[in-house]
Amino acid sequence: MASQASQPSAPDGPRVIVAGATGFTGALAAHLLWRHPDFELVAVTGRSELSRPLGELYPRYRVPLAIEELAPERLQGIDAVVVAYPHAAAAPTVGALREHGIRVVDLSADFRLRSLETYERWYGTHPRADLLGEAVYGLTELHRERIAGAAIVANPGCYPTASLLALAPLARAGLIADLVIDAKQGISGAGRVFDQTTHLSMAGENIVPYKVAAHRHTPEIEEQLALLFPSGNGPPPDLRVQFQAHLVPLDEGEMVSCYVTTTRPVAAVELSELYTQAYAEEPFVELLDRPPGVLEVRETNYCRVFAAADEHTGKVIAFGAIDNLWKGTSSQAVQNLNLMFGLPETRGLL
Amino acid sequence: MASQASQPSAPDGPRVIVAGATGFTGALAAHLLWRHPDFELVAVTGRSELSRPLGELYPRYRVPLAIEELAPERLQGIDAVVVAYPHAAAAPTVGALREHGIRVVDLSADFRLRSLETYERWYGTHPRADLLGEAVYGLTELHRERIAGAAIVANPGCYPTASLLALAPLARAGLIADLVIDAKQGISGAGRVFDQTTHLSMAGENIVPYKVAAHRHTPEIEEQLALLFPSGNGPPPDLRVQFQAHLVPLDEGEMVSCYVTTTRPVAAVELSELYTQAYAEEPFVELLDRPPGVLEVRETNYCRVFAAADEHTGKVIAFGAIDNLWKGTSSQAVQNLNLMFGLPETRGLL
Amino acid sequence: MASQASQPSAPDGPRVIVAGATGFTGALAAHLLWRHPDFELVAVTGRSELSRPLGELYPRYRVPLAIEELAPERLQGIDAVVVAYPHAAAAPTVGALREHGIRVVDLSADFRLRSLETYERWYGTHPRADLLGEAVYGLTELHRERIAGAAIVANPGCYPTASLLALAPLARAGLIADLVIDAKQGISGAGRVFDQTTHLSMAGENIVPYKVAAHRHTPEIEEQLALLFPSGNGPPPDLRVQFQAHLVPLDEGEMVSCYVTTTRPVAAVELSELYTQAYAEEPFVELLDRPPGVLEVRETNYCRVFAAADEHTGKVIAFGAIDNLWKGTSSQAVQNLNLMFGLPETRGLL
Amino acid sequence: MASQASQPSAPDGPRVIVAGATGFTGALAAHLLWRHPDFELVAVTGRSELSRPLGELYPRYRVPLAIEELAPERLQGIDAVVVAYPHAAAAPTVGALREHGIRVVDLSADFRLRSLETYERWYGTHPRADLLGEAVYGLTELHRERIAGAAIVANPGCYPTASLLALAPLARAGLIADLVIDAKQGISGAGRVFDQTTHLSMAGENIVPYKVAAHRHTPEIEEQLALLFPSGNGPPPDLRVQFQAHLVPLDEGEMVSCYVTTTRPVAAVELSELYTQAYAEEPFVELLDRPPGVLEVRETNYCRVFAAADEHTGKVIAFGAIDNLWKGTSSQAVQNLNLMFGLPETRGLL
Repeated sequence: MASQASQPSAPDGPRVIVAGATGFTGALAAHLLWRHPDFELVAVTGRSELSRPLGELYPRYRVPLAIEELAPERLQGIDAVVVAYPHAAAAPTVGALREHGIRVVDLSADFRLRSLETYERWYGTHPRADLLGEAVYGLTELHRERIAGAAIVANPGCYPTASLLALAPLARAGLIADLVIDAKQGISGAGRVFDQTTHLSMAGENIVPYKVAAHRHTPEIEEQLALLFPSGNGPPPDLRVQFQAHLVPLDEGEMVSCYVTTTRPVAAVELSELYTQAYAEEPFVELLDRPPGVLEVRETNYCRVFAAADEHTGKVIAFGAIDNLWKGTSSQAVQNLNLMFGLPETRGLL
Repeated sequence: MASQASQPSAPDGPRVIVAGATGFTGALAAHLLWRHPDFELVAVTGRSELSRPLGELYPRYRVPLAIEELAPERLQGIDAVVVAYPHAAAAPTVGALREHGIRVVDLSADFRLRSLETYERWYGTHPRADLLGEAVYGLTELHRERIAGAAIVANPGCYPTASLLALAPLARAGLIADLVIDAKQGISGAGRVFDQTTHLSMAGENIVPYKVAAHRHTPEIEEQLALLFPSGNGPPPDLRVQFQAHLVPLDEGEMVSCYVTTTRPVAAVELSELYTQAYAEEPFVELLDRPPGVLEVRETNYCRVFAAADEHTGKVIAFGAIDNLWKGTSSQAVQNLNLMFGLPETRGLL
Repeated sequence: MASQASQPSAPDGPRVIVAGATGFTGALAAHLLWRHPDFELVAVTGRSELSRPLGELYPRYRVPLAIEELAPERLQGIDAVVVAYPHAAAAPTVGALREHGIRVVDLSADFRLRSLETYERWYGTHPRADLLGEAVYGLTELHRERIAGAAIVANPGCYPTASLLALAPLARAGLIADLVIDAKQGISGAGRVFDQTTHLSMAGENIVPYKVAAHRHTPEIEEQLALLFPSGNGPPPDLRVQFQAHLVPLDEGEMVSCYVTTTRPVAAVELSELYTQAYAEEPFVELLDRPPGVLEVRETNYCRVFAAADEHTGKVIAFGAIDNLWKGTSSQAVQNLNLMFGLPETRGLL
Repeated sequence: MASQASQPSAPDGPRVIVAGATGFTGALAAHLLWRHPDFELVAVTGRSELSRPLGELYPRYRVPLAIEELAPERLQGIDAVVVAYPHAAAAPTVGALREHGIRVVDLSADFRLRSLETYERWYGTHPRADLLGEAVYGLTELHRERIAGAAIVANPGCYPTASLLALAPLARAGLIADLVIDAKQGISGAGRVFDQTTHLSMAGENIVPYKVAAHRHTPEIEEQLALLFPSGNGPPPDLRVQFQAHLVPLDEGEMVSCYVTTTRPVAAVELSELYTQAYAEEPFVELLDRPPGVLEVRETNYCRVFAAADEHTGKVIAFGAIDNLWKGTSSQAVQNLNLMFGLPETRGLL
């Protein structure tokens, strides 16, 4: 029964807290930081389950710390906080942390969008719009340098992570004229929510599309793609992405299938060059010459990417496969923390 | 242990044989015909497992008949045969059956395409091109009248079945300018094949795209959609459908998500009218006002359809959910047999 | 969209109500009665979801009736009610129904035990102990004759159903000296409960024992086994059954593995004779010469049984496989209703 | 695409080979040794798939080494080999390796039994009975000291591992009079075998008992339990264990439920003391006060144990939960290698 003591958190590293550790993504972030060789996980906080060891709620993660309230006095000497709160609930806490000078990786959508107007169209009034300028979009492979120095890292959604990694080489080359993204995700994507969506008798053996014609991840993808478009060419003035998500009966895993109508014909060899150039040096992007399966990236920080030109239609199909809880959320948060504290990007993640 | 005798096949109805009953779709066709109140299932045949009761291979189906060879003398007095052979293997058998004057529902792709040229581009030389003219495409809802009198019914593939039912109202209105179909299917779609695709440790907890930019169901969908286009408008001279299939970890179930760039803006109310008009009277098409889940049609002959207009992109999204082995294959074969023998279309299927 | 009208309930048959149709077993009972050729399902009632069509809550079951309260005036002309309430909640309703002269199949535990003392040790005070004498234990194969005339049928639990069918031949021969029953069940056994037990991310890929050394099904099994023991021999004065249940990651299905220390050595041939004699004529018990899989009885009223003598240990192992929601609960309720109303026992169940 | 280089094997540690790396357990052993901080994985060998990178066969494991034949010249400078061959095939290779003075962890059953007579009753003639004396049974927690110095470690089967850890405290106290073990395991237990046992459409949504009254793991459990019995008391001269295995629909995970008729009454407090005393200091045994779920130990070297006294029956129930591929096989092999080479037992396993 020695597991409690078997993975002591690093005592001399940067001191971090996970706020909102009772949910799936917060708990996983706590697990990854607890076993990380260079961070000291000081506390896990939550609004429920107070004083219960996190390891009771999530036995697999073996984090012995007890859940506590996020009390101001606890913030003394803390270097960073991972905020795993629901959308809109996160911003005020992020604001308070910034006032203590603490760096933040925010897993919510609150600071992902650069355009306040877009944010408010999808989410309503922004609680801390004043902080938008401090936030860097935390898709590591796209914004590595700025993340290293950021005060607030707005960790991307899992769908944008997989989609943008699958599409970035095409976007940078200005090749996207029209875009359909069909995404499939395991039930962990619904989180620690107990209802028909997650009951094994209803979700197992099922495939269910959700949020038809209304997915909040759409503007995040559109905004980031637009940033990638080559400014010389001028981006398509208004790329409207057709994004559709589906729940499929597995736990962790996410596949995005991207169907791109290109601005001009793209041959297989050009496609291959674009992707190789983009990802040859990336430690966590694995470029394949066949379609990936999500099981290949299960419980890892890897994203597997495959792109093909379809001679029959002239379109390009690009796939991105990730673990929605890992690279899609919590391990990418650690990847970002590594950069923010001058550690090798892969530390604790291989 | 009285199950062998508990579901006697109808002794006075049309006499049918299932040829190729050892595979998933043949076995299910045998099950449905065995328990059908109006057909007499006379024999089940196969090329392996000879003399084993089908009920041993497929315990759930409880068909006590032993597998036998398809001997010519067995065809005496037979009214119809369901042929569940692999592509290319079916055509010679279908030919032989026709020479005995026996009506056929063929589950293979051999007689689905009207264009011989298209067939040969995807499958190679056709073994019995002379019979193409006798064959009627067996998507019941589209060709009900001609199926009733057909000598050969070419039962559709499961992907075309769900896709065409989801898209027919748009096609008939000439509204499809460009089309992406993203399909997800359970592992039963791989059939009685034993390899990495179907091993639970490899296929469970996985999502895998397959046959990228090369799916043989594409021409079948394109050809049937073209037939639906209003001739007055003239069909798009060459609609190229982007079709992509994925395996997801369940047994039976199939979802097609169709993304339609329309020829002109389509409002929600028009969309609703088009679909209601098409399907209000259909016994096996259930039109929803929310996205369907495949579990809702599991082990039934129903297809659930939902269509929505996306104001953000201007596209129309249409979903079709079926059980790939049932409406996607074997129960649709029975639906067609019902029509061919003057029975109510729903007989044995509710 | 014709499904609402496609399966009209039999208008001239006995008129039945399912009370508590919002739970898994009540909903399935409603489905089976709705499509039954000889019963008229008049109403489905519940304490929540009032006025919602049951088909919305359980799309697969396609019962168009709306959920209503169980109002006294509704009971006019009703022949039978299936009561699918939680334990202790059922008894008062059963009592009220009896006062209207209505026959009841009760799916709860309230009337399963003959001994009031045993009931109260496990469940507390009995709300209607006065009715215990009217109740017949509804394991059809054991009490067929008395069920036919019963006012109240106490439908067995799913674990006792599978266990007793697996063990009855041994019990009748007085061969059971000591007994361990290890039961495994799919997640549907937890019912329409939304918590860690049923969340796919927690219950999928898991095996979890529950109610260790405290399962309420134990006395039900012990009491029924004792009734089967040959009175001449005298039953073991106090057979204490070791019963342990486990949840495994599937929807419907239940396997009981029974390990029997016998009162004397039992040879394979004697074992075979005992079971064949017991079950040769049973329409819903399928005796195998190999272990069954639960998928073989999925969504059927069958119980598959296999028994073997282990030469190494001298013990007998007996397996019983059922669908916990079907033969384990709701289809057995219909089997009992068939008997109660003079219909063939298999009607609507093949 | 930098994954190939991202986890270089330790260049200065003991040099090891995994022989038979194409199967599930060999591949996992290769993965664990490849990422191990102190072993250098020099080669992976197999009899098929020659020259294919192991990472292609098992993408999740990311071992870039290509599969090669186990050539004698390859053995130069090798310190240890993990042999992952089928039963009977392993012994000759183990013999050859011993002649090169190479230490072996053998995953097969060939050297697990101390009694040659018992071996030959279950498996036939032993190919290298001369080496039985050199072999130490590799259940780390039971034989830690002898494993450290062993030439051949006979790694236990997964069922004996979980069973013996669940039962050792009772056996050492001489408390086991009679014993039933009911084991449930995920489909990975069937290995890289492609047939009805592993096809998702047949194994998913199923529970299947196998090898009834004939499981080869029985003598291994009996022999090891007998060794644990206190010699003073005298072991039961011939404890016959009733062992029964079942496949359930998940990938990795194994639960053994042990039902113990004790030699004398055992109170809860004594039970608790026995187990606490046995496991308080064990790094990989987690003693619980509630039943474990296998998901809690998924992909770890932990075994979770829970024991309870049942007042109703007087029996003791003990549960052991492991990951069959990890603690059940390959991570226990690494645990043993750690001991054999003087490393901390937990190295590379937390």
